Amino acid sequence: MTSAIDWEAFAAALGDIPHETDRALVRQKSRDFYWYSPVLKQQLRGVSADIVVMPRDEADVIEVMRRCVTQRIPLTPRGGGTGNYGQAMPLHGGVVLDLLALNTIHPVQGGVLRVGAGAKLGEIESVCKPQGWELRMFPSTRRTATIGGFVAGGSGGIGSINFGQMREAGTLLGARVVTMEAAPRVLELREDAVARVHHAYGTNGIITELDIAMAPAQPWLDYVVAFADFLALARFADRIARADGIAKRLCAAVDGATAAYFRPLQDVVSPGESLGLFLVAAQSAQPFEQALVRHGGRIARRLTEAEVEAQSAVPAFEFTWNHTTLHALKVDKEITYLQSRFPGPDYLRVVAEVMEAYGDEIPVHLEFIRVNGEVACAALPLVRYTSEARLRAIIADFEARGITVFDPHTFVLEDGGMKQTDPEQLAFKREADPFGLLNPGKMRGWQAHVSAA
Amino acid sequence: MTSAIDWEAFAAALGDIPHETDRALVRQKSRDFYWYSPVLKQQLRGVSADIVVMPRDEADVIEVMRRCVTQRIPLTPRGGGTGNYGQAMPLHGGVVLDLLALNTIHPVQGGVLRVGAGAKLGEIESVCKPQGWELRMFPSTRRTATIGGFVAGGSGGIGSINFGQMREAGTLLGARVVTMEAAPRVLELREDAVARVHHAYGTNGIITELDIAMAPAQPWLDYVVAFADFLALARFADRIARADGIAKRLCAAVDGATAAYFRPLQDVVSPGESLGLFLVAAQSAQPFEQALVRHGGRIARRLTEAEVEAQSAVPAFEFTWNHTTLHALKVDKEITYLQSRFPGPDYLRVVAEVMEAYGDEIPVHLEFIRVNGEVACAALPLVRYTSEARLRAIIADFEARGITVFDPHTFVLEDGGMKQTDPEQLAFKREADPFGLLNPGKMRGWQAHVSAA
Repeated sequence: MTSAIDWEAFAAALGDIPHETDRALVRQKSRDFYWYSPVLKQQLRGVSADIVVMPRDEADVIEVMRRCVTQRIPLTPRGGGTGNYGQAMPLHGGVVLDLLALNTIHPVQGGVLRVGAGAKLGEIESVCKPQGWELRMFPSTRRTATIGGFVAGGSGGIGSINFGQMREAGTLLGARVVTMEAAPRVLELREDAVARVHHAYGTNGIITELDIAMAPAQPWLDYVVAFADFLALARFADRIARADGIAKRLCAAVDGATAAYFRPLQDVVSPGESLGLFLVAAQSAQPFEQALVRHGGRIARRLTEAEVEAQSAVPAFEFTWNHTTLHALKVDKEITYLQSRFPGPDYLRVVAEVMEAYGDEIPVHLEFIRVNGEVACAALPLVRYTSEARLRAIIADFEARGITVFDPHTFVLEDGGMKQTDPEQLAFKREADPFGLLNPGKMRGWQAHVSAA
Repeated sequence: MTSAIDWEAFAAALGDIPHETDRALVRQKSRDFYWYSPVLKQQLRGVSADIVVMPRDEADVIEVMRRCVTQRIPLTPRGGGTGNYGQAMPLHGGVVLDLLALNTIHPVQGGVLRVGAGAKLGEIESVCKPQGWELRMFPSTRRTATIGGFVAGGSGGIGSINFGQMREAGTLLGARVVTMEAAPRVLELREDAVARVHHAYGTNGIITELDIAMAPAQPWLDYVVAFADFLALARFADRIARADGIAKRLCAAVDGATAAYFRPLQDVVSPGESLGLFLVAAQSAQPFEQALVRHGGRIARRLTEAEVEAQSAVPAFEFTWNHTTLHALKVDKEITYLQSRFPGPDYLRVVAEVMEAYGDEIPVHLEFIRVNGEVACAALPLVRYTSEARLRAIIADFEARGITVFDPHTFVLEDGGMKQTDPEQLAFKREADPFGLLNPGKMRGWQAHVSAA
């Protein structure tokens, strides 16, 4: 698709807009953490852009997009490159648009943050905390992920135990989006219209700025707690998740087989212990620790935020969500994972059944979140990978047990968390990317639309 | 019981400890808002202490209690006197201990407030807000109620949509309590031990200080919203209650018959309109108002906290919980009310059934709260009172429909919200009030204990 392009001429015409054509560097900026999935690792191995462009501001973004439309060049946006599904990988080559320089963090006003898409989540927290605000939610990749990437390619994470996922009304309030047209337009999407670009992988517009509802900042304690028995830990985590009087931001549990991969914790944990990872508000330390003792657990590590910083400790949240998988992959290359949600409210029964059925093949990893006002049990269990056929069989069995699986072994938008084409997102793509140049190959609904036309 | 006491001598011996013996003033300080209930109005009409003592500090409290024990004088503690069940009414006369002077508000540390039992809730909010903290929950009587009275005689209120009720672990962290013994002891109750004095009406110790977990402060918008149809409003309120992405502190709904009593709102509301009362965080105004429009409601009044103050407006929360009943009683002396919780999660179906069954006899009033991590529907419906027999019949019918009723027409601890004697509270009373002098006649379990002895 991009073979006819004179990339030297394209690069030269960019003038002072920063760009990179070195093949190794371009290849590096064309990938994310897709290799967590052995399936994607196989499929996406050779993917690379032809050039990486690093716009300095929205005017640069518009200029690059205009040029791409003129020459029918595919363009794939990129934030921190921390996705796991090839969200930011340019299947058809072309331009990778690195948005890291669009990182302006405006002052929080009335609890709402206007922020450049390329701002890193960790930086947002650092800047906003002294103003009395913090992010409602962030992925385990907070240090390096961008807010734009989180909105375009993510779903929820630490904080979702309070605020649900990003898709729920009220957190993502507005998005400034540039269209992929001969004369790109800048749209301010608000209210429901924001859903058009949320979790659309940048397939139907380039987000340059966002309006995000923040949470009032609190001092958090970073806990790693240990239990001899996983189900006792799971019951404790469930109790904490449901305890409205105990303020927390993270509530996760992994079994001993998973915890065995957590090298940075080996000094504080005994072999075989199951671990709970929690962020608990300082004012809730007493009831949290009291419940811990009562459920038979112990504190393996407790740090203030300042102590995490001063000791360069790996924070508890960097053992949760997909960082859990990362720790395992550092030790065992044969490991992969699943994303799922257990049917509630009696989800711990199903967890026990899965443990019984799979034993060591599936080390357990639970993440407690809120969905529609109720506590729900998400799970990103590790899987000792043998073949794609076996992986698909496990997914089918999970679904037969009533467990919802969000397949992380696909780069197709609809086959992952979405389950089906969002008609609004597709309609918006027709309007905002009429030539189908944005992150091509990711939205199945668009391919069908093009084939039918 | 107190007829043998020489009250002049008792008063004289108090020395410089402030006290009041004027009969009218003592009578005034011997009552609360028990008259919301026609049953209690009848039963408690004649109740009065013999003297009101106003200790300046804990040393004064100890001294008064010591003297009372020596002379076997009953002692009933009092905060703002805003209870509705005669909690602070001295059934057997004696001393009313007015704790308003124990109102020290220490600086919030790590999200925890140490505060004197007599501090008013409104004052606590005013003092803590500039420090970045606010109360997790408060009753509609925030202006005049004390934290000690709320803990000893209350249950929850505004904020319970986030933090559940006070009884849930994590909000009430500690209590400093003076025992009613010949040599009064000062106990620091922590962790579960705090439950011994929570909602015990001061029957088993006098709380002088409390440790309370606070919430990080947020800017709140004060909404009164109007709907033509009550069930449409109820569905909207339910949606907001369950919306984890929409930050709120109050979520209440009353029907048109109830709203008709809200005189301060008559300029902004049309006759027959049902009203929703909300406190919504500023950053959630957009999604809240969007949902409002979609559900067919309109904004009748929207004020910032500063505007409420500047305009001396009646805040939205002063139309909720038992202030709803107060507004009705100001217009119609024949009105009383019930306290109940509808069975969930399909509580709106039961609400509709009750409306169908009772029509104008029971104007509807819903309060959405959280219980054990889930949204629950509490209700304090008005009742057009005809007789106690009819009231009891309604309560029986509510219970037959699966609705839990917390009888507000009794001054007996166990017959209201508690349902049964708390064995820990009773055991603690045996230890801390061996002569049964504290707020006598309120704890049924104690009477049984004494009779059996």
